[in-house]
Amino acid sequence: MNAITDVAGVEVGQVTLIRGDGALKRGEGPVRTGVTAIIPRGKNSINPVFAGWATSNAAGEMTGTTWLEERGYFDGPIMITNTHSVGVVRDAVVGWIVDHKWPRSWYTPVVAETYDGYLNDTDGMHVTKEHALEALAKAKTGPVEEGIVGGGTGMVCFGFKGGIGTSSRVITTPVGTYTVGVLVQCNFGLMQTLRVGGIKVGEALKDRYSTCTTMPPSPYPNIRTCGPDSKGEKPGDGSMIVVIATDAPLLPHQLKRLAKRPAHAMGRLGDTGRETSGDIFIAFSTANSQIVSEQKDKMSLDAYPNGMLNPIFEGAVQAVEESILNALVAAKTMTGRDGHRVYGLPHDEVRALLKKHGVLVQ
Amino acid sequence: MNAITDVAGVEVGQVTLIRGDGALKRGEGPVRTGVTAIIPRGKNSINPVFAGWATSNAAGEMTGTTWLEERGYFDGPIMITNTHSVGVVRDAVVGWIVDHKWPRSWYTPVVAETYDGYLNDTDGMHVTKEHALEALAKAKTGPVEEGIVGGGTGMVCFGFKGGIGTSSRVITTPVGTYTVGVLVQCNFGLMQTLRVGGIKVGEALKDRYSTCTTMPPSPYPNIRTCGPDSKGEKPGDGSMIVVIATDAPLLPHQLKRLAKRPAHAMGRLGDTGRETSGDIFIAFSTANSQIVSEQKDKMSLDAYPNGMLNPIFEGAVQAVEESILNALVAAKTMTGRDGHRVYGLPHDEVRALLKKHGVLVQ
Amino acid sequence: MNAITDVAGVEVGQVTLIRGDGALKRGEGPVRTGVTAIIPRGKNSINPVFAGWATSNAAGEMTGTTWLEERGYFDGPIMITNTHSVGVVRDAVVGWIVDHKWPRSWYTPVVAETYDGYLNDTDGMHVTKEHALEALAKAKTGPVEEGIVGGGTGMVCFGFKGGIGTSSRVITTPVGTYTVGVLVQCNFGLMQTLRVGGIKVGEALKDRYSTCTTMPPSPYPNIRTCGPDSKGEKPGDGSMIVVIATDAPLLPHQLKRLAKRPAHAMGRLGDTGRETSGDIFIAFSTANSQIVSEQKDKMSLDAYPNGMLNPIFEGAVQAVEESILNALVAAKTMTGRDGHRVYGLPHDEVRALLKKHGVLVQ
Amino acid sequence: MNAITDVAGVEVGQVTLIRGDGALKRGEGPVRTGVTAIIPRGKNSINPVFAGWATSNAAGEMTGTTWLEERGYFDGPIMITNTHSVGVVRDAVVGWIVDHKWPRSWYTPVVAETYDGYLNDTDGMHVTKEHALEALAKAKTGPVEEGIVGGGTGMVCFGFKGGIGTSSRVITTPVGTYTVGVLVQCNFGLMQTLRVGGIKVGEALKDRYSTCTTMPPSPYPNIRTCGPDSKGEKPGDGSMIVVIATDAPLLPHQLKRLAKRPAHAMGRLGDTGRETSGDIFIAFSTANSQIVSEQKDKMSLDAYPNGMLNPIFEGAVQAVEESILNALVAAKTMTGRDGHRVYGLPHDEVRALLKKHGVLVQ
Repeated sequence: MNAITDVAGVEVGQVTLIRGDGALKRGEGPVRTGVTAIIPRGKNSINPVFAGWATSNAAGEMTGTTWLEERGYFDGPIMITNTHSVGVVRDAVVGWIVDHKWPRSWYTPVVAETYDGYLNDTDGMHVTKEHALEALAKAKTGPVEEGIVGGGTGMVCFGFKGGIGTSSRVITTPVGTYTVGVLVQCNFGLMQTLRVGGIKVGEALKDRYSTCTTMPPSPYPNIRTCGPDSKGEKPGDGSMIVVIATDAPLLPHQLKRLAKRPAHAMGRLGDTGRETSGDIFIAFSTANSQIVSEQKDKMSLDAYPNGMLNPIFEGAVQAVEESILNALVAAKTMTGRDGHRVYGLPHDEVRALLKKHGVLVQ
Repeated sequence: MNAITDVAGVEVGQVTLIRGDGALKRGEGPVRTGVTAIIPRGKNSINPVFAGWATSNAAGEMTGTTWLEERGYFDGPIMITNTHSVGVVRDAVVGWIVDHKWPRSWYTPVVAETYDGYLNDTDGMHVTKEHALEALAKAKTGPVEEGIVGGGTGMVCFGFKGGIGTSSRVITTPVGTYTVGVLVQCNFGLMQTLRVGGIKVGEALKDRYSTCTTMPPSPYPNIRTCGPDSKGEKPGDGSMIVVIATDAPLLPHQLKRLAKRPAHAMGRLGDTGRETSGDIFIAFSTANSQIVSEQKDKMSLDAYPNGMLNPIFEGAVQAVEESILNALVAAKTMTGRDGHRVYGLPHDEVRALLKKHGVLVQ
Repeated sequence: MNAITDVAGVEVGQVTLIRGDGALKRGEGPVRTGVTAIIPRGKNSINPVFAGWATSNAAGEMTGTTWLEERGYFDGPIMITNTHSVGVVRDAVVGWIVDHKWPRSWYTPVVAETYDGYLNDTDGMHVTKEHALEALAKAKTGPVEEGIVGGGTGMVCFGFKGGIGTSSRVITTPVGTYTVGVLVQCNFGLMQTLRVGGIKVGEALKDRYSTCTTMPPSPYPNIRTCGPDSKGEKPGDGSMIVVIATDAPLLPHQLKRLAKRPAHAMGRLGDTGRETSGDIFIAFSTANSQIVSEQKDKMSLDAYPNGMLNPIFEGAVQAVEESILNALVAAKTMTGRDGHRVYGLPHDEVRALLKKHGVLVQ
Repeated sequence: MNAITDVAGVEVGQVTLIRGDGALKRGEGPVRTGVTAIIPRGKNSINPVFAGWATSNAAGEMTGTTWLEERGYFDGPIMITNTHSVGVVRDAVVGWIVDHKWPRSWYTPVVAETYDGYLNDTDGMHVTKEHALEALAKAKTGPVEEGIVGGGTGMVCFGFKGGIGTSSRVITTPVGTYTVGVLVQCNFGLMQTLRVGGIKVGEALKDRYSTCTTMPPSPYPNIRTCGPDSKGEKPGDGSMIVVIATDAPLLPHQLKRLAKRPAHAMGRLGDTGRETSGDIFIAFSTANSQIVSEQKDKMSLDAYPNGMLNPIFEGAVQAVEESILNALVAAKTMTGRDGHRVYGLPHDEVRALLKKHGVLVQ
């Protein structure tokens, strides 16, 4: 399926909220947002998974990371939504896990965000507890919808319409065959920096597709601004959440290493890690299913050898790169609040550019 | 005032929720919780403060720390509440800062927690958006209420009734006179480990004051359990939030150093950093008030010399130690859900023990 | 043996260099230094051990920590020496491991330091490659010499003569009986802050035992200085290296947690983490002996449950506290370069103080 | 000069050791190594510079980083050499700084390494104290030699001959014009992953230029091995040291952010962060020259606004990317120990490939 769900057991559920048009009225809309749930062992299991997290430029939020780092694992789902809806989603997940016979007294969920305020009434906080629970209830294995969906609904990626993307790699190593699956909520990157297959397509496309042209000039002539909203935030100053799943039996310190790889993929696509970007990455392993949240008994664990990590790392970088491109390819042009318009990646023009440079053959 | 508010400009507001008795009914009560707001520059300013954070045992949550670490500062308040109310408080603060003419498009608040489920219906999520806004509205300079108040209402500290504590030190150095103020939400520590003034008062008091005696025996005879709740969480397995304020012009990397000091104070009181304790610390400086959230102009900053940090560190350790003791001294015996009772520190007996050991003279 | 060597397989070897008296002549002496080797699996094995490291105030050096953190383990010994001899010891260990049929091409040793220049001609770099190799050759199981020995030869701890100290705890848990062993090179702390058994003995002893009285007055009257050397470095501004060994099968992320505990023990003894102190801690597990440096095959590992970590943490804090006291108790008064004299802890007076306060009974 | 020395005051000195041919005899040769010194304020100043460091895959060594991170600055030079010569270089720098009227008692130098054992008798430790002092003595402003020089003498980069590379960018921002200079010791990357200007030149060249063809087959057929040495280490499993200098007045926490950017540049060139690669990065600012090592007085500092960091980040990523390519372009084919041969990048073929893909016009 070329999706994070190729890692056995992983389920994804998404709720998409699109409502209204025209001028922004806080609390009313327009609404272009949603919530995405990734459940490592599926919604019928709250057993923990070993995990690690990392950032490259951390101007964003992923809750639950301190406990995750202390214990080496987390329980329950990873949720992704817009910046200002992290709280309501967090509390919804607390209720959900309590209702799922959570064996402990307290819980701190993993909820991440990127900012969709260029298209969405983010301050209106349109994601509700019910939406979060619906995303969890809808979680399933199988194909994952990409582009304008779930937490990615209102996102902007390299100045084009972004959102959710996913990809996977099957890796054959001397110690076994494993899968690495990735899901991204892509909301980062300046259009002029976008490289596809190494070719600077962003530079070629920016004059016609960037929203810059309809925007007031920047007070800072050396700093390119593309479509600032009323407070000066611009598409391209957003963030990037990456979730990496694998069934290889990596330990927490190895998963932390894996969680550092997305920066390489972002570099391949031309990004430099923008100052306001919240690039936060989490990696988990579905192996070692015997670990439980209370962990009061000794365990025998499978462990993956450091000396065979390279294909896992390579697979993860490839899958992150492709997930971002998949998000761009799947998302269509969207008009949101105050008539803000973000264009979908023009497939034909990109293909033509790649062919021109001999990167794409047919 | 021997309070965090001795650092000029710092305001504290608290809302305390105490309601109901008897058997736990999720969503109904009994309620023993609240929320505490600390606003570095007061509620009329959302200008940022340089800050740093650290943990010793991080089995807990403080949101907003990744952005804080990336930028070196945070804006708006620090909120402390119970574990399962972090989300609603977070979203309330987002709304509050948007209403306060926040100059940026997006915001990730700093909200910390400790767990009060031994006394409180934590899963019932009784803290509302309105409670958080009320704590912010009530924030003021001047004396700070301690003990059973605000976020500390239902907390347990060294097996005795804990909660909010505060203290400060004025430090005269060759480069100026500065104040270090501390506020803690104290919910950590086993009774048998408590040392006051170096004397093992916990060992002497535990047989009569620990809730152990009324509890079913632990299945693990070598692990002492004191008063587990229905899921096995015990007073003493909780957490510790420390907020350190200073008007000394420390830079972010120096504030991170300052934020590491509470572990020394916890050690002085006998603690060893329990596995399930979320000991999370944040330090900020109210100096350099010219920094603003967008930060687009060069600044001239005051900077404090590394070579003079020792008295700041010493003052912080002393103030954390005293804040914890102040929380213990202020809090009285409380009975909460399911008749769970946590005793207040018996002042007379502690004084007698200290006198016996020649630590207290009169 | 109440030593780090109570953890089966751990070997310790030490070389002590004491030579010359009187005025400092760089390169000639007086010499008061040495080197201590701790070899987790003994000198006949270079197989790695899972490990983690941490600092509280990191004004010092432990080489090899970046690779250790990346891999989760290290190979070969831990070496401790004086600050300016880290390089020669490091290169000696490289040669030693190459000679021990090291299966890889390259190696970065773990070498830590504290500063002994108040007594020793540190700039003279009197530790040689041969001394480092001799410490490795002498490494053995069994009792460990404490006080003025090995890397600890010239150290000062709480203003008294410090050096090497060791201690251990046997911990019985529901999942097995394990040992935690500690070795410290103690060179930190101000005399006036020393608390023994909670009693402020440093305050009582400082007027007669501090070297302050013979020193020129500090230019900073609010900062107490005790015996600065010619460049203003003072006993009490030194550092603390802690090595924690266990046979409990902790994973790397758990060993990192264990490595954070010494700050609690230092706090118990009155310390606040001085600005110039290099307090660096490393913890390793001798379990899971099947891990090898190249790690190209899948492994089955034993894993210790998080829910049983508390007794390990408690044992480590106790053993660190006792190791520091053991270093103080074992070390006698020493006179070093330029006639600098550092007093041994006066046993009788400390005992008298503890009896007076009812902490010591007989 | 398109060099790190474009940042005013920065001096670079290099010593290159090339001696002998044929079969490896440990201690005799062949020798293909050296040492590179970068002195932020020039060799006549030991005043510190604010600094930050970071890693992406940390299987290597840079000494001095714990103290650097604690204080926010370091004093004296940054040295780069081969893996097994870090100790001797470190001790040489200690002596050098003591001789330069170092105002403090103790010092921990910043010394980094990459592994050159495919060409060099690394275990023979041919770098001496005198070589390190010579590199320091030769340090000067002006053009910097690239390729086979200094610490880079024996290095391998993307399977081609690597070594030292440098580059710089002048950045005009609304708050001033600044320079970002970079120097790399390039020893990382698999040939088949190399992309130049986005074009996969490594894939096209690997069959003829990789040393794989003369090597015994790998026991792990799915893991490509290119030219393992006698112990299985391969070109492409090496490391990457990046030094970033700027005269923009960045504070330590901002320099840490800057130090994270090289991963993006490495990604652009096709790398994924190989398991055994020690990719360690350090960034410093020559602004704020008033900071001194003892730091006992308050300071007024210049500070650069977060909101203007993007052009600095962009300039750094570009300069790292170009520095790596400059190292590859400057280095010629070298034959080292045991007849191991590493080819220089074939300029004509690379140019032809870039022209074919329309990336290079003339």
